[in-house]
This record gives sequence, structure tokens and C-alpha cells, in this order.
Amino acid sequence: MKFETDTGITNLIISKNKGLLISKYNSSLNLLVRSNVVKTALLTGMILMFGGSSSALALGNDDYPAIRKAAEAGRAESIKRIQDWIALPSIAAENLNMMEGAEYMAKLARDAGFDHAEIVPTDGHPGVWATMDNGAERTLAIYFMYDVKQYDADEWSSPPLEGRIVDKPGFGKAIMGRGAVNQKGPEATVLAALHAMRAAGVKPPVNLVLVVEGEEEIGSPHFQQIVSRPDIMARLKQSEGIFIPIGWQNMKGNVGVNLGAKGIVELELIASGKSWGRGPEKDIHSSLKAMVDSPAWRLVQALQTLVTPDGNTPLIDGWFENVRPLSAREKELIAQAAASSDEATSKKLLGVKHWIDDLPHKDALERLASQPTVNIEGLVAGYTGPGGKTILPGRAVAKLDLRLVPNQTRAEAEAKLRAHLDKRGFTDVEMKIGGGYDPTETAENSRIIQAELETYRRAGVAATLNPRLAGSWPGAMFTAPPLSLPAGQFGLGHGSGAHAPDEYFVVESSNPNVAGVVDAAMAYVDFFYQVAKIR
Amino acid sequence: MKFETDTGITNLIISKNKGLLISKYNSSLNLLVRSNVVKTALLTGMILMFGGSSSALALGNDDYPAIRKAAEAGRAESIKRIQDWIALPSIAAENLNMMEGAEYMAKLARDAGFDHAEIVPTDGHPGVWATMDNGAERTLAIYFMYDVKQYDADEWSSPPLEGRIVDKPGFGKAIMGRGAVNQKGPEATVLAALHAMRAAGVKPPVNLVLVVEGEEEIGSPHFQQIVSRPDIMARLKQSEGIFIPIGWQNMKGNVGVNLGAKGIVELELIASGKSWGRGPEKDIHSSLKAMVDSPAWRLVQALQTLVTPDGNTPLIDGWFENVRPLSAREKELIAQAAASSDEATSKKLLGVKHWIDDLPHKDALERLASQPTVNIEGLVAGYTGPGGKTILPGRAVAKLDLRLVPNQTRAEAEAKLRAHLDKRGFTDVEMKIGGGYDPTETAENSRIIQAELETYRRAGVAATLNPRLAGSWPGAMFTAPPLSLPAGQFGLGHGSGAHAPDEYFVVESSNPNVAGVVDAAMAYVDFFYQVAKIR
Repeated sequence: MKFETDTGITNLIISKNKGLLISKYNSSLNLLVRSNVVKTALLTGMILMFGGSSSALALGNDDYPAIRKAAEAGRAESIKRIQDWIALPSIAAENLNMMEGAEYMAKLARDAGFDHAEIVPTDGHPGVWATMDNGAERTLAIYFMYDVKQYDADEWSSPPLEGRIVDKPGFGKAIMGRGAVNQKGPEATVLAALHAMRAAGVKPPVNLVLVVEGEEEIGSPHFQQIVSRPDIMARLKQSEGIFIPIGWQNMKGNVGVNLGAKGIVELELIASGKSWGRGPEKDIHSSLKAMVDSPAWRLVQALQTLVTPDGNTPLIDGWFENVRPLSAREKELIAQAAASSDEATSKKLLGVKHWIDDLPHKDALERLASQPTVNIEGLVAGYTGPGGKTILPGRAVAKLDLRLVPNQTRAEAEAKLRAHLDKRGFTDVEMKIGGGYDPTETAENSRIIQAELETYRRAGVAATLNPRLAGSWPGAMFTAPPLSLPAGQFGLGHGSGAHAPDEYFVVESSNPNVAGVVDAAMAYVDFFYQVAKIR
Repeated sequence: MKFETDTGITNLIISKNKGLLISKYNSSLNLLVRSNVVKTALLTGMILMFGGSSSALALGNDDYPAIRKAAEAGRAESIKRIQDWIALPSIAAENLNMMEGAEYMAKLARDAGFDHAEIVPTDGHPGVWATMDNGAERTLAIYFMYDVKQYDADEWSSPPLEGRIVDKPGFGKAIMGRGAVNQKGPEATVLAALHAMRAAGVKPPVNLVLVVEGEEEIGSPHFQQIVSRPDIMARLKQSEGIFIPIGWQNMKGNVGVNLGAKGIVELELIASGKSWGRGPEKDIHSSLKAMVDSPAWRLVQALQTLVTPDGNTPLIDGWFENVRPLSAREKELIAQAAASSDEATSKKLLGVKHWIDDLPHKDALERLASQPTVNIEGLVAGYTGPGGKTILPGRAVAKLDLRLVPNQTRAEAEAKLRAHLDKRGFTDVEMKIGGGYDPTETAENSRIIQAELETYRRAGVAATLNPRLAGSWPGAMFTAPPLSLPAGQFGLGHGSGAHAPDEYFVVESSNPNVAGVVDAAMAYVDFFYQVAKIR
């Protein structure tokens, strides 16, 4: 998923063990994960929760044992549902199986009990819109994506479309395949919850609306068209909020609940002889530097105006005008997290000896949540192979990401960066915007956040309230006007390897702290009930 | 050859026509090529020179007609000699055919009449030392390399070891193969001259010593060991000077004569979390920029201290201390060259609209000859593929070349750059030296330069005296103490594509201005006579 989110430090360990680079969307974003701000019941094993036979009454819902029984009866089918879906990869960048994927998605929704499911055309690839009217007072919105990231089968230890069952030490049996955790596994687990409820003859306690896109992996370029369709927008506006299902429990079972996320602008700054009118249009012999200007030096000069000499604070004109400082509550949450976090392990896992300015952990975590950044993702100019090559490059590129905090906006950031460069004479330095999102915020007291926390509490799962994810996701489409919905991620279970080879999602857990597919389905069932009844 | 030299603008055109990047060692270094500072005889066709049958007496040497006759009789053998040599590629970087190549070289020397030829072991790959005592008063030294650059046969239009004869429009028939022009073709043409003299029963008018290495393409790491052997050094010191044979006539037949070359240091500046002790040791998720320092920003900050804001003048402490300004004679040569040069064409070929500071051409050419430079060859950090990737890189690299002018030295440059960085606190920014040479100078009034000019004049070839090549070659090994020899490049003929696919060397010219293998051999014969008799 392009949603830049968090599987906790556990996943970081796993990635390291496999020798992978930390991938774009599967990283240790949430350094708060180790705390337990929300006090939880003693972890007694998930089977005791949500209607496990030995303790059904604990949950106070007479339907749970029947639903769990149905979920367990449907376990094989639930696993096969994930595998079958993995076998049909929809890849927007390659225009692969897009209509087939949308139709398959609509059928999956219908099979799970959605009374209405339709393909929604866009100027790009189609989305899906489905509704399940359960005669309930409240409506819960769900976001799905049916597309997956590209893959190179040669890099996989198991065929990426096969969804083979593999053993993941410390976790249990997992499906390995493209889309397993990003995002078909967690999504199909929501469907498994609905199948179980239907099999048990139980109507969900909330109405459900499901909005699906097939272009998530290419930056959701047409999703706004789906969300803006008047009838879809009207139903979304009526909802309590929207969630995307996830499977990001770490090895201890812990999860994070994010009250918002930073925004981002990804862009390239490009200096070139062509645009500058000085220097060479193409690479020329480096000896000519004595009489020809250098676009690479031009880029260096433009770059160094963007941040303080230590590289840590943006100096772009007006950058902090709309930056909202942390609230007292936000600081409180961070302080709590810092107090219970394991700083030494975080540093070790990240390969970092000092935080910026040698800050203590709490202050570094405040900086993480509160500060906008200008980061160099990559530099590319001229000769990039081993050794050297005596050229004067005609073009030099810096790949940047700008992380934004409330109340900055993406549009504001782009305009201010352009104005900053222009004011200093760098009108020729091109900005090639790759994509971006506004920051998001979801109120702690919203029903969806409170229902998430309550569901985790009832499952005995330590959930950390994180005032702001330092990563980014396109939630502003939901959280900003006109929708202004609470939005977040929710789910139990575990998987990893989004965008990487050997992506997996645990279906039968051998770890008492981590949910397999039945327990994760039951968590969705309970979540529906919490959304229906909370406050 | 790593000798960074010049085939003139003609070759640049050829490279462009073939859609090649300008390669490292085959570029338009010498923007002076179009002038004719040295007044030449009317170009009457090379066959009239050096003993062509219709005008043998013009040259005043009774032996020339017989030598030419022998050279023409040996033409097929001379061509085959180049092809056979190409079929045995010695590649030092791959330890391919090194001893075989050295033995083959020694045999080539013996066959051409060298009375002594021996393998010279080094700590690396062996060289060859050969002598031909002709009872003459003066001795001329010749430098050969027997190794060639790596190649990828898939990129070639003709098998690179086959030496197939191809047609080069505007030039004639050429041998295509790895090493054709770099440097086996021109070297074998010297051997062809010696074969022709022997066949004609004529002793060369100078004693010859030949020093050969097999590691030229990897930067000559052990050549000093060969040159320093006492008996070899003694013979070299007795010589009038040393030359490497070349084939760099442009389409008009013009050549350049360089009175020296800039020195160079190639290096990488590396900023890394590992060396810095701040920032991450490996790439981490970019959202962490808010609490973790960035080696990429560190590199940018270190870089921007090295040059003026326009990127054009080094600011490294003490950089200009030993820079010798241009002499009046050097300025005069540049002014003459500028007056007869085609600035518009040069700019067009280079894709450059303005020289630095909008200088007029003469001033730009003075800058080219006189100014040391700090050039960015390449920038590499983090993610370098298409689009973006949200990482904070653990390492960032700038590939630089520093061009040096007399009386700077490589050792001085390396020490001053290190001190400059250290003084500004960048002690952690690593300097990884790739290689380098001191600048070279050869006096205009040296016998070897005067003999070159006289030979070109007699051949009707316009030769431009260039006070300093802006490129670099390891000639300082010869020109600096203890040898202090005049050193340069000499030869007629044409080839191109050094280090690139489809490298070639013209053997039968259809262009009256450009020498084929017989005329080029005769030019070496005449050069021997000029060295023997001049002043």
C-alpha cells in the first residue's frame, strides 16, 4: 500500500534478518509502539476473547460463540479466498487485469453479503462501490484497494501468485504471495468476518459501505472521482468514519493507533544545461569545466539554501507559517510513549547513535511528530557506477521528500518551495512533483478511534495512541473537507514484505500474542459492535 | 588509453553521429584544433611526401623511395599485424592474457628489429623493455601499452576481436576491433615503419628504446617499477624524449601538438552515518528525518564549501598558491588559436550556449588552459531509480575530478582538500582517491616537439601548438624528475572509439588529408630522421 504505515519494530527486525532494505512502505515509522498508553486487560490468549468456547460470556454478546464457530468452520475457505485473490493480480502501472480485478472485487463483496456492489468507472481504472444496509443506526465505511505492487518472480522464494503456505518462525503459518499483507490478506479477513456472521445468521450491527480503488499503488490519481460521486459522498458523509484493514501486530502482539499522519510532497529538483541555458545540454568531457558552467554545482547551490547547515531545519521561506505546535495532549501522549519505550533498541535497529542535536528520546520523539522535514531521498548526476568517469554532467537531480505537519498543505508547500527557489534566482531549477498528500488528523474522541481502542483492549492487545504518524498516507481525501471523516487503520494479525519479495500474511498463528485469520476476523466482528454501541 | 587526449572536433562529430556518449578518453578536449598556427606547405596529398614516386626528391633523402616501396609491399602484412594483435586481448582488470600479451609484445618488437626485448616483471602485470642500437648519436624513446579496455561484444556491430575491415565514410577502410586505435593500431604502425626500413636495408637514424606496460587501462599502478629499473632509467635519460604513437587526425587532416597537460585527481567524497557517527548507518525510512541526521545533507554542505557560488572557482584553502599564470607565449598561442577557431561550431557540438561568465572565446580558452577546476563527475545517494522512494540514505557520494595546472601537484591537491574539509569540521567526510597525475610540461624548443612540428609541416598537415591540454595523461612520470624528459603524442592517421564499442583505426584512407597505414608509417620514418637531425 502507498499508505505509509507501520508494522512496528518487529517487522524491522524481520526485514533485517532477511537482508532486505527497509522498503518504502514497511518500516519502523512508529517508534512509539513499545509503550502501553492504553492499559489493557492481561493478555490471556485471543481464543478467550470474542467467544472462545471456554469464556464466551466474557464478551457479553450471545452471538459471538456462534460467529466464532462459523469463522472456525470457514477457516479453510477464508484462507483459500486470500489465495484465489492473490492469483489474480491487478497492477495499474501495467494495466494488468484491471477490469477483471474490479469485477472480482465486486463479486467478493456480493459473496460477503453486500446487497449492492457496482463497478465505478473513472478516467483511469475502475473502482468498486458496495453497500450493506443492515437497518442499523450507524454506518461504518471501509476502504479497500484491489491492486497490488509489481513484483519480480525471480526474487521470490515461492511463486508470488501461488499463495503458498509457509512457516514463519515466531508467527506461524503464513500465505506468501504478492498482496498477502498489502492489502488482500487483511481485506479478505474483513470479508471472512462477514461470511462468519452470515453463516451464524447474525446481521452486522452497523450498516457498511465499501469504497474500493484499483490505483492505490500508482498514487490514487482517480480516487477522488469515485469518492466525489454524489451518492457515494452522501453515504460516506453519513458514516462514523472510515478504516482500512491492516495486519501489523508485532511479535508481542502490540499495535499502534494513529491520530493523524504527516503529509508529504515527493519531488525531484532538476538542474540542467537545457533549462538553465548555461552549462552543457548533455554530458561533456570534464576538462571543459574550466570554461563551461556545471548544472551539478548549480543543484548543490540550490539545495544548500533549503535547510540549516546541519541539514535538520527547513529554511524555505515561510515554511513554518502554518505549522501548528503540538498540543498539551499530544505532548502527554509522546511523553508516555517515551517513558515506556526502549530507546537503546530503537537506536540499534535503526543504526543510529545520536538523535538530532543529541536530543533525549522524548524530545526526539516530539521532533518526530511535530517537525516538517526536507529530506534527500536520492542524488543522481552524471556517472554513478564504480570508480570515476571524467564527465561534466548536463543534468543533476535531487529526489526530495517534504514531510508536512498540520496545518501545512501540499499545495502550500509546493508553491513556497517554488517561490523560494525563484527568489534566489534558481528559476531554472525544475520541480518535478511525484505526488503527495496533505497531513491528516483524526480526533482522539471520535467514535472510530474509541471503538478501535476498545476492541484492542477487549482483545488484550497493547495499543499505543500515537498523536501523529511521521509517515504519510492519503487519508486527507477522507479527513479534509468536504468529507471531514475520522479515518485510520484497524486490524489484528501480522504480515510483512509489502512491495518486497516474499510478502506474507499469517493465517494460522503459533504466537499467542498474534492473531491468525480467525481471531483477526473476530476482531473485525467486535469492532463492528464497538462502533455500533460506543458512547 | 587513459591518456586523456584529443581526436579533435571531427571525432566528436563522429561520436555524435553514432549516438554515443562522449567517452572518457575520446572527446573534444582540444578546442584549438581548427587553427593553423604552424604554417604548412600547401597540402598536396600525402603520397607526394615521404618518397611518393612522383616527387621523391622533395624530401632530400635518397632512402625514402625504397622505404616507401617496402612499406607499400608490406601493407597487407601491416594490416594483418594489427588484426592478429587485436585477436589477443590483454585486460589487466580481468587478468586476461597478461603474460601472453607481454610475450607477444616482446616478439613484435624483436620481429621489427629490436635487438633486445625482455619481459620486465613488476608487482603487478609484466611490462616489456626493448632496445635497438643503431649506432646513432641520438636516442628516441617510445612508450607502448599492450593492454586494452574491457568490452561488451553485444554492443559491437562487428566482433571486437575479429578486426574486421569496415568502411568509414569520409575516411576509408578501417579495422574495427578492441584496441584498434587505443593503442595497437598506431603502435603497430610504428612497427610497420621499422619493418619497412629493414626491408629496404636502411638503419633507423636514431637509436630506439621501447618501454611497454600492460596496466595502462587500470591507471599504470606498477609502471614506475619498470621505468625505475636502473638500466632502463639510464637509457631513457639519455634519450631526446619519449612519444606515444597516436592516430588522431581529424577529417581535415589536422592535428594538435600539446606542450603539456593538466594534472588530475579523481576521487570520491563520501559522507556516511558510519563514518560520521550521526545519521543512520544504512538507509532508513525518510519520515525519521525529523529525528535523525542526514549524511546526504552533510555531503551537500561539505561540497558547497569547495567552490564559489557559481561553481566555477575552487575555494579550497591555498588552492592557487602554486598556480603558475600563463606565459606571454602561451597567451600568444591561445590568441592565435582563438582567432582561427570556429567558436559557434564548438558551442553547438558541446551543446553550450555561453562560456563561463559569458567570456569571449579567447578568454574562455585562456581559462581552459590556465585554471584548475573542481568538477562533479557524478552524485550518488540513496534511491537513484525512476520516481522516488521514501528513504533517508545512510551514505552519499560525490565523484569529483580536480584538474591541476603547473605547478600544482597531485599530492599537494589531496593534502589541501583534506585540510580544507578538516578545518571546517568535515573530518568524517571520506576522500577515496581513484587515481591521478601531476600536470606535465614539455618545452616548445625541445627536439621532440620541434621534430614533430617539422614532420607535420613536411607532410602538409596543419598542426596546432596547444600550450596545455585541458585533459590529463600520466606523462609526469616522464616529464618530472628524475627523468625530466620531453614527452608527447605523435602520429598521423585516424581512429576513434577508444573505450567504446566499434573502436576503429583507418588503414586505407580515401581521404587525401588523412593518412592510411602506409603514409602513417612513413610519417614515423620521417619523424625518426627529424629527431636525428633537427638543430
